[in-house]
This record gives sequence, structure tokens and C-alpha cells, in this order.
Amino acid sequence: MNKKAAGSETERPVRHSRVQAPDYSQNEINHKTDTLIYAMGGLGEIGKNMYCIEHEDEIIIIDCGVLFPEDELLGIDYVIPDYTYLARNQSKIKALIITHGHEDHIGGIPFFLRSVHLKQIYAPRFAKALIEKKLEEHHLSKACKIIEINGDSRIKTEHFSVGFFDTVHSIPDSLGVLVNTPNGRIVETGDFKFDLTPVGTNSDYQKMAYIGQVGVTLLLSDSTNSSVPGFSVSEKQVANSIIEAIRRTPGRLLVSTFASNVNRLNQILMAAVACDRKVAVFGRSMENVLEIGRKIGVIKIDDSSFITGNDLNTLPANRICIVCTGSQGEPMAALSRIANGTHRYLHIIPGDTVLFSSNPIPGNGVSVSAVINQLTRVGANVITDSPLTSFHTTGHAPKEEQKLMLNLIKPKYFMPNHGEYKMLVQHSATAQETGVPEENCIICSNGDIVVMRDETCFIANERIQTDAIYVDGNDASGLSTSVIKDRQILADSGLVAVIVTIDSRYNKILCRPNIVSRGFVYIKESQTLLKEAELVVYNALKKKMQQRTTFGELKNCIRSSLEPFLFQKTNRNPIVIPVILNQKAAIAEIQSKAAHSRS
Amino acid sequence: MNKKAAGSETERPVRHSRVQAPDYSQNEINHKTDTLIYAMGGLGEIGKNMYCIEHEDEIIIIDCGVLFPEDELLGIDYVIPDYTYLARNQSKIKALIITHGHEDHIGGIPFFLRSVHLKQIYAPRFAKALIEKKLEEHHLSKACKIIEINGDSRIKTEHFSVGFFDTVHSIPDSLGVLVNTPNGRIVETGDFKFDLTPVGTNSDYQKMAYIGQVGVTLLLSDSTNSSVPGFSVSEKQVANSIIEAIRRTPGRLLVSTFASNVNRLNQILMAAVACDRKVAVFGRSMENVLEIGRKIGVIKIDDSSFITGNDLNTLPANRICIVCTGSQGEPMAALSRIANGTHRYLHIIPGDTVLFSSNPIPGNGVSVSAVINQLTRVGANVITDSPLTSFHTTGHAPKEEQKLMLNLIKPKYFMPNHGEYKMLVQHSATAQETGVPEENCIICSNGDIVVMRDETCFIANERIQTDAIYVDGNDASGLSTSVIKDRQILADSGLVAVIVTIDSRYNKILCRPNIVSRGFVYIKESQTLLKEAELVVYNALKKKMQQRTTFGELKNCIRSSLEPFLFQKTNRNPIVIPVILNQKAAIAEIQSKAAHSRS
Repeated sequence: MNKKAAGSETERPVRHSRVQAPDYSQNEINHKTDTLIYAMGGLGEIGKNMYCIEHEDEIIIIDCGVLFPEDELLGIDYVIPDYTYLARNQSKIKALIITHGHEDHIGGIPFFLRSVHLKQIYAPRFAKALIEKKLEEHHLSKACKIIEINGDSRIKTEHFSVGFFDTVHSIPDSLGVLVNTPNGRIVETGDFKFDLTPVGTNSDYQKMAYIGQVGVTLLLSDSTNSSVPGFSVSEKQVANSIIEAIRRTPGRLLVSTFASNVNRLNQILMAAVACDRKVAVFGRSMENVLEIGRKIGVIKIDDSSFITGNDLNTLPANRICIVCTGSQGEPMAALSRIANGTHRYLHIIPGDTVLFSSNPIPGNGVSVSAVINQLTRVGANVITDSPLTSFHTTGHAPKEEQKLMLNLIKPKYFMPNHGEYKMLVQHSATAQETGVPEENCIICSNGDIVVMRDETCFIANERIQTDAIYVDGNDASGLSTSVIKDRQILADSGLVAVIVTIDSRYNKILCRPNIVSRGFVYIKESQTLLKEAELVVYNALKKKMQQRTTFGELKNCIRSSLEPFLFQKTNRNPIVIPVILNQKAAIAEIQSKAAHSRS
Repeated sequence: MNKKAAGSETERPVRHSRVQAPDYSQNEINHKTDTLIYAMGGLGEIGKNMYCIEHEDEIIIIDCGVLFPEDELLGIDYVIPDYTYLARNQSKIKALIITHGHEDHIGGIPFFLRSVHLKQIYAPRFAKALIEKKLEEHHLSKACKIIEINGDSRIKTEHFSVGFFDTVHSIPDSLGVLVNTPNGRIVETGDFKFDLTPVGTNSDYQKMAYIGQVGVTLLLSDSTNSSVPGFSVSEKQVANSIIEAIRRTPGRLLVSTFASNVNRLNQILMAAVACDRKVAVFGRSMENVLEIGRKIGVIKIDDSSFITGNDLNTLPANRICIVCTGSQGEPMAALSRIANGTHRYLHIIPGDTVLFSSNPIPGNGVSVSAVINQLTRVGANVITDSPLTSFHTTGHAPKEEQKLMLNLIKPKYFMPNHGEYKMLVQHSATAQETGVPEENCIICSNGDIVVMRDETCFIANERIQTDAIYVDGNDASGLSTSVIKDRQILADSGLVAVIVTIDSRYNKILCRPNIVSRGFVYIKESQTLLKEAELVVYNALKKKMQQRTTFGELKNCIRSSLEPFLFQKTNRNPIVIPVILNQKAAIAEIQSKAAHSRS
């Protein structure tokens, strides 16, 4: 474990006045006898969940997710934790346990398996199927065995004994985890909500209550909705709203929802069939999920109810229901292509109804809006979720359901996880309302180590290194922040490359500098500007080369002459790339040839 | 006027089934006697509002705004309409009328004045002050005179007679416009809401009702909130909530809101003073507005109540209230700098309370969330608006208030404006509920021409050209889409420049190609990759140069050899920039020198 580096990116936050600020210098870890709890990801963010419990020579990992980056991480597809610490301690890893099959809990597995050799992963049924599909796509099927677990499973290691309990979430087969350690009992809820009339497996209230009765030292609990008051809408109510909407729809109906919410998908398909419609499913991820869902029996629709893209024109409009991906406005998803008229089978015709059984995830509002506008433009009647209609419900417990979890588990210490910083703080306040003492609420950052010793907890005076690694495509090696920084400047103002050929023997510029630009100005209209710029550089270089100089100095000279000139003329700061070619070798060759031919 | 270009960017939308689809080929304009209504911007978007009314040799323009671009327009600061048509018809322009001082109504003025010579602009008091400030910053103060108008003003031209009526909006002094034309009467509402207990000037219900009684042929009305049911919250209720929040706050209070909402700013300052706090205002735009607001008397706080940044440490925490910019999470605004600890005067200390008297504008949710997290992290208690608290209210009429406008004005024809396409469609449906016949609701795109002839309206069979112009910095010349496209690729995958020096006389490569990259891969770790790439290009070029070839062919050869290689190795498609230097001139010079020195 590394001591915290000064100025590192994962600096410990200045702590909140309402939260304890202990003297960390006293909090030394006893690596022989203490149990350590830390997050590689998932604290201060929604994404890349990965929580570790370590005792002596054993580590148990819960979840292994990715984070989907925000717009300012240009060209980045995923963010994952730096796995270095775990790779270094590979031999200690006894189990990777997956709580459910969402990308922010399983998406990191292919990258993790390239850093760390794992014999097996424990995952509930539906997550197992998704992980197997994922490993296949990454040609990693043989890298690791997936062992199916459920609410009754047990995993035993030398120091740990792990049990599970069923929870309700927006994907089938989600579990909470109980870890018995030599220093106390830990519960990690996974993503959960309470739904008194759920579709699919119900929460195991009895087991949670029993765990609470036996006694829990530390609870880690899902903080996503900790600022949302009240209780969530039941999935059953959503199903009722959807069936009502289908009944009222006169023509073709398209429903867009999250692919992974298989219970929802099943409800929509059942409702459509009940209303005498045939169903088709469009979009790769949803087709995958449909296949898995039918295989494991969560989706129970007959073959005879399904139609393909080719059948769409053979049925009357009011006999058709299409379920598709793209509810977040993703530009390449089925719904966007349908709206733009670029889908293979389906174009919108006036009279079509599009129902969004979803809400825009923060950050996707603009793209969802663009798709709705486009659908409206081509003639569709678009229906979205609203507080009055209930076409969607959250998968995460709001405040009152978080309180119910806290009341069932009755933890001694509370560590909110799975959330942005403000959510962790709010969840901690909620825990205090249910009776957890303020000084027992622990708000951590990724890499902070909570030490559990004889059923008490404190934050250690050292940390685990957990930088964010940027993944572009499937390149797990990661991109450094300097590459992202360059992309940000390129995106903002483009680039200007200056190519200068010199002869270092004569200390002479062989020809006028050449300037090439991209994404900077419209070149056809800026010929004069670029010619002027070449002259500016040429004059600066000529002056510089009156004395002996180095390549580095010449590059600086190009930048320092060109940047102010371009900024003055255009108010922009493109990246200036100086390229200096030294032709002495080549020229010597030519000369010798010439001499040779003369002789 | 240009006929619509095939495949142009501003294609006429496929029309909604519920909306009339007339046979445009019949709808010829009689340029002598018809009155034409068209939008240069503002239809199908929230932004760059600019509505024109033309009759024979006269044009009246209402508003001249900018659109703030979405994230995918990299490095673009504003989008404005293409003013070419208006510039070509400059002599016809009789008046530019401004309804109120928001950027989407006045922001285009500096750019417009560079394309078109205008003698005067008509603007209400507060907008006038903002425009004057803006023209000063653009060194255009002398370009144009601003004439102040109010609800009682009249503008007369040969064909038009223009009157105004007071409306309520989230900025003082906003007006609706009535234009009497030879073919009928037109009302453009400007941005409006109805507030039965407003702060500042009230809506002129009597005048609107009177205008309706006299008879209106065509109403253009603000569609922003046409999907929002019910009535809006009154500004007075917001003021009450804020004063309650200030009373309850124990320590320092920071309030962030929209700079231009001067009435809100005044309410916050008054409430703070009433609670015995001194006030300071941070952020350039808010300081500007404060200055203007005090000058024109909308803000009535004593000098003695204001403190400066230097006074902050001399007062007890509960005597301080700071109002600042940054409620949308703008990274350079005061609140972000305060949160990050980079503000000159103010750092958050535990116990501070930050109140957001605002809502995130769609698209800003992620950056607002980031600021809230950062504020929480450094110890602030953050309070945001919620349906239960009313710390903010909209400036735009929701559905029921839109109906009230429709009932007061009672138009024969209705053309929803100021909104995205889905909002225009929804507003049209609302108009039909109030009795406007379906066939009299006209949904247009920017550049569509509505012809008014003897108090009837139809869409013409020709259009005005209205492309979007991208403005980077203050460069009104606009950036072409090719520059943006390049930036998008650069942002996504970076660039690779290949520099090759050849001697065209000998058809020979003088040295190994040189590769330079930015934003592509982390260079320190990719030396081998780039060396291999150089070899790939070198071999391809050598082969190519066995025959005579051209520069263009060589550039293609570089691209076609390098792009597949890089994609295969990295799964990325950076921009490949080939640079070919021909050294024959330079070398000839060296050779002659060498020959000279030998002789």
C-alpha cells in the first residue's frame, strides 16, 4: 500500500463539518489482525463499483464495474480503476463476487482479467449470463469460470464466510452480500430498492431482519437516490400504466426502455400480447437480453408472438408493438436510427406512437430531447414518463426505503457507497435519523481504508492507490491525462503544425517553414493568415539561428513566435506542433552522389 | 429569395399528420401586395430568435439573438443565423425591435451590425442598457443608436404601425409586439409568463384583451414550456421562500441565480438586508447587472448595505450574504471558483450555506452536479430548488398561461415560436383546445415564409436561406462545418502527422518519414508503435515512387498505408496529416554553394 502522494488526483476530501475528522496519524493498521475495507471505485461517483475486504492474506472483491465518462473526457469509452494494487496482491484474492449484471458492476471484468489472473467469479444467474456473453466478445471465455450464486449460497475462505440475500433492483437476480470477518460482520447491499409489489423476486425481508438481529458492525449501502424523498413507484404500477397506454394506442406502438431491465421488458411484451399485438425487439443489447431472458425463463412469451423486421408490413398497424433500445438518445441505438430514417426495417409513419418507458439519466437530457424532436418531426406521437403517468420507476431506494434498509440491518457503523459525494453526505444524514451515531458514519473516497478491529471502525492513516484509468476502445492499457488534455485543446481550437527543414552543419534554414492546420480555421479563407504565420516563424528562426542553438530551443522559438501571433489574429490557442527536420545526412548523400557523377 | 436547395441543412420538416400539409406549388407570393412573416432563427430551437415581417420594400425585425451551442459543437461559443438575406435587403430594414434583454434575443446584435448597417435599434429600458454595454465591449458603440421604448411606444413606417404591451418575464422591461400590416394584425408575444403577483411591472391584461377584441390575424407565441402542465409559481412566492431560507441560515449565505433576473436579485438583496446581513455581489455579469439595475432604479438597496471582498473577514458569518454567478455550473463563474478555492476573496468554510435560486438548464445538469459535489466536499450545506421549496420559478408560460394568452388575443391564425419542434407541436395542440382551428395552426421551420394576404395565411412555396453560422470567440466570419468535423475527430482520436522529405527530381525519399502525434496515444509508451508506423509508410512510399507520381498520390499513399495499420494496432482512427516537403530547390542551392566553395 502506498502512502498518499502529495497532490495526487485522489486526494482525501476536506471533510464535512458534520462528519468526524479524526487524527489520522494515530490510526496505524495492524496488518496481521485488522480487517480492511476499501473501494477501488464507486465512492464520489456513480460507476466503476469495486469494494474490497482484506484480512491478512485474503482479499474478497465485490463487483467490478466501469464508469461511463462525461463529455469532457473526449473519445473515452470507459473509465476503470487502476488495478495495480490488486494485481500486486493477486495471490491474496480469494473471490470476485458480483451482486448484479449492470455495467457499473460487471463492465470492468474483461479489463480486470487482463491484469489479474482469477480462477472464478461468483455471480447470480442473470449476471452470469451477461458476463459470459461479455467474455465471449472479448475472447476471454477461457480466462475464468463463472460460478452461479443465489440468496442461499455460501462462500467460505480461511478468514471469511460470505452469505447473500435477495434484493429488488431494475435487473433480475440482484443480491446483497454479508461478509463475516474475524473483526465483525459487514453488509454490502448492492444496488437495491424496496418494492412491496415487485415483478420478479422479492426482497428477503426476513433474512435482512435476521442479519440485523444477529448484529452488523458495518453497513455499506446504495446512495444513488439519497436526495429523493419518499418511496419509489412500484414496478407493478408501471406495468399497469403501460398496459393502459397500449390499450389506448390506435396505431403502431414503439416502446423504448433500458435493455437490462428484463422484468420491464417482459411486462411490456406480455401487455402487448394481451392487447393482441405481435412483438418485435430491435437493438443489439436488447436482442441479447431477450435471448438470455428467454433462456433463463424470465421472459415467457411464445415464439408465435414474435415477428421479425420483414413481417412489419404484413400486419395492420394496431397489431404491432416494437420494443427497442435508444431510450437515452444514444445516436447509434435503434430508436435514433428509426427516428432518422436509417433503420433497416422500420421508419416512422404518421400515426405511430413512441412510448419512453425510461427517464433521461443526468447528462443525457439533450440527446433524448433531440430524438424526441426528430420523432415528432417525422410524425410520431411521443409519450414520456411524468409524475402523473408512471411509465418508469427507479431501481434505487429513495430516502424512506434507505431508512427501511437501515432499520432492518441496524448497523453499528455506516459507510454510504455507490454515489456522488453529495449523495454520500445525504445518506449519512439519513442514517443518523435512524439512530446511527454521527461519529459512526464514515464518508470515504476511493482508496481510503476503513480499519475494522474488534467490531470498531476507523479510517487508516494510509491509502490504496486508485487513479482513474481511461479506456479508449478496448485498450486496457489506459490513456494518460496528457492525451485527454491534448484532445481537449484540439477539440477547442484545433492544431497548427510547423515543419522546418534545417541543415545543422551550416546552422541554416533550408526553406521557408511549412504550416499545416486542422480544426483551426477554414483553410480556403485563411491562406493569407497562414502565409503571414510562416513568415513570422521564419523571421524568428532566422534571428535565433544567428547563434548556435539546440533543437529544443528552436522548437520553443517556433511556439513562442507563433502562439501570440495566432492568438492576436484569431483569439484562439491551437496546439502548435513544431517539427524540425535536419537534412544534413540526406544532403551529404546527394552531394556525394553529385560529386561521384561529376568525377 | 432562394428556392429551397435540395438537401440543404434547413430542410422543411416532414409535417405532422395532425397539421395541414398544403400543396405548396400553388402558394406563390405576390411580392407587391402580400405581407411575409419568417424566422431567421428561433423555430425548432431555443435560441437565436429573429422574426421578420416584410411588406413590399419594408422589413421589420423582432429580436436578434444567439444560440448557445451543445457540446458536440466543439470550441464554438455561439451560433447565429446566416444574415445574408437581410444584408442583401438592407435598404428595406426599417426597424430592429428588441422585446427584452436576454442573450437569445440580443446576443446576435454585434454580429448583425457587422453585416448590416442599421441606424437605430428599438429596445426597452433594461435591454437598452445591456445592449449598450455589449456594443461597448465590441467597440461598436458608435455603430448604432438605441432608442428606448415601452408599452406606450409607437413605431410608424409606410406600411407598418407597431405598438407594444407589457409582459412579465424573468428580466425587467419585457414587451409583446403588435404589428399592424396592410394584410392584417400580427402579435408576437416575446418571452412571457403570467404572474398574478409579480415582482416589477405587471402584464397589461387590459391592452392584450383590447387587442384581441379589435382582432388579431396571426399570433406568434412563446412555446418554451408548452409541455409543462398548469400554472407557474409566482415570483412573490419565490421571494417568500428565499426570505424564509435566509432567516433559517445560521452562518454565511451564498445565493446563486441568473444574472439577468434583476427582480430576483433585488428580492434576494432586500431579504438579506431585512435579515440584517450585508451583501456582496460576485461575478462579472452580475456586477454589470447590479450596476445597471441600480442606475435604472430596479435595485433599491443603499450603498451602506454593500460590502466588498475585502470586508468579508471583518464581519461575523451571520451578517454576510453573497450573491454570485455560476448557478449553471459554468467552470469560470464565481461559484465554481469559490467551490474550487480559486476565488480571489471567498473560500467556503464549514458552516457556509449555498442556495441555488435556479434550475439547471437542460444540458447543464452534469456541471451543476459537479459544483454541488465540490461545495459539499469543502463543507458547504447546499440547498437546491424542489417542488416543495420554490427557490426558483420559470420565466416562460406553462400550458394554462399559454391558454390565457390565446384567450386574450383570440388569433385567427396561430404560429407557435420560440421552441424546439416538439414544443411547437404541443403549443399548436394547446391552441386548438382554445378554439383555433387545426388548419389555422402553422408550424414552421426557420426560413419558411408565411404569407398573409387579406387576413388569411398560408405557407409560401419558396424559402429564405437561414443556415446556422458557428462563431468561435468573436469571429463573426463563422466556422465551416468542416472545421467542426475535424475538431470532432481530433477530440475523439487525436492526430498523426507524417512528414516526408522527397526530392522530386530524383523521385527519391530523402529520409525516413517522421511521425508526430497529439491526443492519440501516450507517446512515451508508444515509441515502438510509431517507429513501426514510420516503416509502414516508408515501405509504401518506396513502392509508390518506383513510378512517376504526384503529390496528391503520395498523400493518399500515406493515408491508405497508415490508417489501416493504426486502426489494427489501436482501434482508433486519428486524423492522418501527410506533409510532403520537396527539397530540390534547397538542395540545388546547397550544391551550388558547395560547388562554389570547391572552385
